[in-house]
Amino acid sequence: MAWHVAETKAKLKAAAVEEFAERGLAGTRVESIARRAGVNKERLYNYFGSKEDLFALVLSEELDRFAESVPMLAEDGDDIGAYAGRCFDYHCDHPVLIRLQHWEALELPAGKPVPDEDDRASRYAHKTAAIAQAQRDGRVIASVDARDLVFAIIAMSSWWAAVPQLARMVTGADDSPAERARRRASVVAIARRLAPDS
Amino acid sequence: MAWHVAETKAKLKAAAVEEFAERGLAGTRVESIARRAGVNKERLYNYFGSKEDLFALVLSEELDRFAESVPMLAEDGDDIGAYAGRCFDYHCDHPVLIRLQHWEALELPAGKPVPDEDDRASRYAHKTAAIAQAQRDGRVIASVDARDLVFAIIAMSSWWAAVPQLARMVTGADDSPAERARRRASVVAIARRLAPDS
Repeated sequence: MAWHVAETKAKLKAAAVEEFAERGLAGTRVESIARRAGVNKERLYNYFGSKEDLFALVLSEELDRFAESVPMLAEDGDDIGAYAGRCFDYHCDHPVLIRLQHWEALELPAGKPVPDEDDRASRYAHKTAAIAQAQRDGRVIASVDARDLVFAIIAMSSWWAAVPQLARMVTGADDSPAERARRRASVVAIARRLAPDS
Repeated sequence: MAWHVAETKAKLKAAAVEEFAERGLAGTRVESIARRAGVNKERLYNYFGSKEDLFALVLSEELDRFAESVPMLAEDGDDIGAYAGRCFDYHCDHPVLIRLQHWEALELPAGKPVPDEDDRASRYAHKTAAIAQAQRDGRVIASVDARDLVFAIIAMSSWWAAVPQLARMVTGADDSPAERARRRASVVAIARRLAPDS
């Protein structure tokens, strides 16, 4: 029955996200994903092909989830600090996305295109276009290339979740909500410096 | 003979940096390090103990190398943009350091101290002190905690080397010296926004 297939696929993908984020591509066994999902591993192969295909699929779907949850810099006076704060929140709440991207950086062969590279690049092109619009509106400094601003905003908002051991060594071991709020306020304030001087 | 031991140790550590940066802790076999160095693996165990000990040692030594090569923000009017540019250059030229730190983030158990954590935290405390001095001198904005500024500068300068696939998707596949210079200029310009308004 179709609903049953959909449910089984969803279970497998949810298990795959957790396993891949925890252990990477090489370190994750298809058996572990299947066991975590409570599904036979032959069905995983039938539905998704190889382990590499499944990694690419779940990363792509996590990027979709980010895009659905975190509105891009809007045209209606949205400020770049608020945008950086939204990105920071998402990555703190869903560290699997940035972990998948770091596994990819470390495990895939250097210099070769990643799966869905063109499609993924077009997502960043949309972000860049939103920043460029804000530059034309005078809400973001025009002296720095919009692409590099996109990269800097992602770096400064996501890196906290990417390297928790460095966050701890730089700012202290406190992982309370108050410390998270403090870090967030700094991310927002730093990004806000990318608005033109008033 | 002592010089021979020192030479052999140096060969093993150089091989270990390359292997660990490429394949991480779990993915690197002691045999591969020994073979790359042209040294018997029993000597590796004798000199360095476990694979985990060797990973911690080479990461610590790479951090020393960074500290020797990249002067901290100095008191004599050094500007924060120039400092970020120096960090960017180092990470582009020596991506092994940021890769080792990302492997550590992904592979070591979350929430547990990393090897040499106190010693490594004290390095960041020195960087924070240098930024705090610049804040008192009016060369860096005082409205953001110095620790968070340290974290942001590392993020925006090192991330290019950490996730080359994202750098490519955001800014294009060009890996020429001109593109690197362009990215560097943006890092410097963004960091310079953290100086007070003139």
